[in-house]
Amino acid sequence: MNLEDFLSDTRSQLEERLLASFAAPRSERLRTAIHYSLLNGGKRLRPALVRAAALAAGNDTQDWLVPAMALEMVHVYSLVHDDLPAMDNDDLRRGKATNHKAFDEATAILAGDALQSEAFAILADDEHLTDRQARQMIAQLSRAAGANGMVGGQMIDLQSEQQKLTLEQLETLHTLKTGALIQAALRLGALCHSQADPALLQALDDYGHALGLAFQITDDILDVTASTLVLGKPSGSDLASDKATYVSLLGLDGARQQADEQGRLALAALARVGLDSQSLMGQLAEYVIQRDY
Amino acid sequence: MNLEDFLSDTRSQLEERLLASFAAPRSERLRTAIHYSLLNGGKRLRPALVRAAALAAGNDTQDWLVPAMALEMVHVYSLVHDDLPAMDNDDLRRGKATNHKAFDEATAILAGDALQSEAFAILADDEHLTDRQARQMIAQLSRAAGANGMVGGQMIDLQSEQQKLTLEQLETLHTLKTGALIQAALRLGALCHSQADPALLQALDDYGHALGLAFQITDDILDVTASTLVLGKPSGSDLASDKATYVSLLGLDGARQQADEQGRLALAALARVGLDSQSLMGQLAEYVIQRDY
Repeated sequence: MNLEDFLSDTRSQLEERLLASFAAPRSERLRTAIHYSLLNGGKRLRPALVRAAALAAGNDTQDWLVPAMALEMVHVYSLVHDDLPAMDNDDLRRGKATNHKAFDEATAILAGDALQSEAFAILADDEHLTDRQARQMIAQLSRAAGANGMVGGQMIDLQSEQQKLTLEQLETLHTLKTGALIQAALRLGALCHSQADPALLQALDDYGHALGLAFQITDDILDVTASTLVLGKPSGSDLASDKATYVSLLGLDGARQQADEQGRLALAALARVGLDSQSLMGQLAEYVIQRDY
Repeated sequence: MNLEDFLSDTRSQLEERLLASFAAPRSERLRTAIHYSLLNGGKRLRPALVRAAALAAGNDTQDWLVPAMALEMVHVYSLVHDDLPAMDNDDLRRGKATNHKAFDEATAILAGDALQSEAFAILADDEHLTDRQARQMIAQLSRAAGANGMVGGQMIDLQSEQQKLTLEQLETLHTLKTGALIQAALRLGALCHSQADPALLQALDDYGHALGLAFQITDDILDVTASTLVLGKPSGSDLASDKATYVSLLGLDGARQQADEQGRLALAALARVGLDSQSLMGQLAEYVIQRDY
């Protein structure tokens, strides 16, 4: 399967399952708000990473699906909360009103909270997983999401507005805010195989670290080079808010070099376990760096 | 051990462990905000229920501690989010500034988010639990916290402001908003014993349902009868906001009768498994109904 088909098939399988989630809701409004953000046409990169890692670990069944849903639920909850007025105060996300604009702030907070709970609930309930797999996946995902992962990264990001960050501090921030969840996607995928090779796990960790940074650097570049229409959110918003980015620290060319360097590191990690640039993982790295939105 | 000693010993063991939580933080501000709410002198009723249920199921080890911490983390996260301006907009909680008043809204949102992640992380990591126990506890806690539990109850609560609720609708609301987590506390406690008696589990569920309602009815009564100083938050706030309560629907005497009735139901459930009103569980029910703050 080529990358385009892989991504499209992953999206369609995932979204069918997401559409069926939160069935029999006690509050119809809460379900509507959750589905509004959960089914908003995202790229589904993290679910694709779960599936690709499961394949790399030797599991070609449908076991990737529930872990991928859990990953996406945590990712979407973080977007809904990050968009809130008290946080990044964004009105648009992928060309549509953000959750608190389409509903209200209270609903957006609760939708995010419920998405986080549900991520762990579906892993705990997934009949494809042994008790050990479910427990390990929940441990990985909760640590990646929490105070020393994604949420910690967002806190540091908010604290560092209008501050001159060093390149090292910027890297730490994004390793937590974006990288932790990307690494968790790969680990959950690998855990779909009950006895994944430790060398593969280490390679996926290194690949995920580089991929997370490449993703963020590309985001910073797109904020400067892409139009609002293509991005689905106001372009140039980082510059306007005087935020430290790879572009503000390194310039546009320097940032592009840095993205290429992280792409190279990602491929080098894959090469250690015999995966080349034409493997799914290799193509995914290329996709992250070359994407134009 | 009498009830007072049991509650005080539970509080002190629990708080020692909570104080040690979130060690080695990536953001000191996030940790400070989390600890501010986590160690704010709560009654620790839910942890006491975890411990009492573990004892009732025949486990007298320290296995209750991590599940009790997880329960309290979810409870505290919900308080931090419920106090936000977009939700109940409360400035005071237990006589102290609420989290977003002491810090800011973004920090309060993130502190709550991180507390929820950590609750599942510590259960997944707890070495006292088998894989099966950890998984079952996470399943119970996440379902109780989520869209068809606590968060769903809070959503219905927000939607029903300025509406005339029936007694049945009010009961549904509180069964989700307060009751689900109280029932989860009892189930996690019972799950500390790897093969708890199904009759005991059913009795604890019924006890928890009645206790949750008794707790809420007593809250409604205290809102009218207790002073702001004793409550640690403005008294009469339900009346001021024109919210449906047991007192507004049944009057003060009717609400007191209803609290007593739920207490009776709680004791009847215990009696089915040979626990009388002088058992820890029995005394806890009495404590919930007789409390004056």
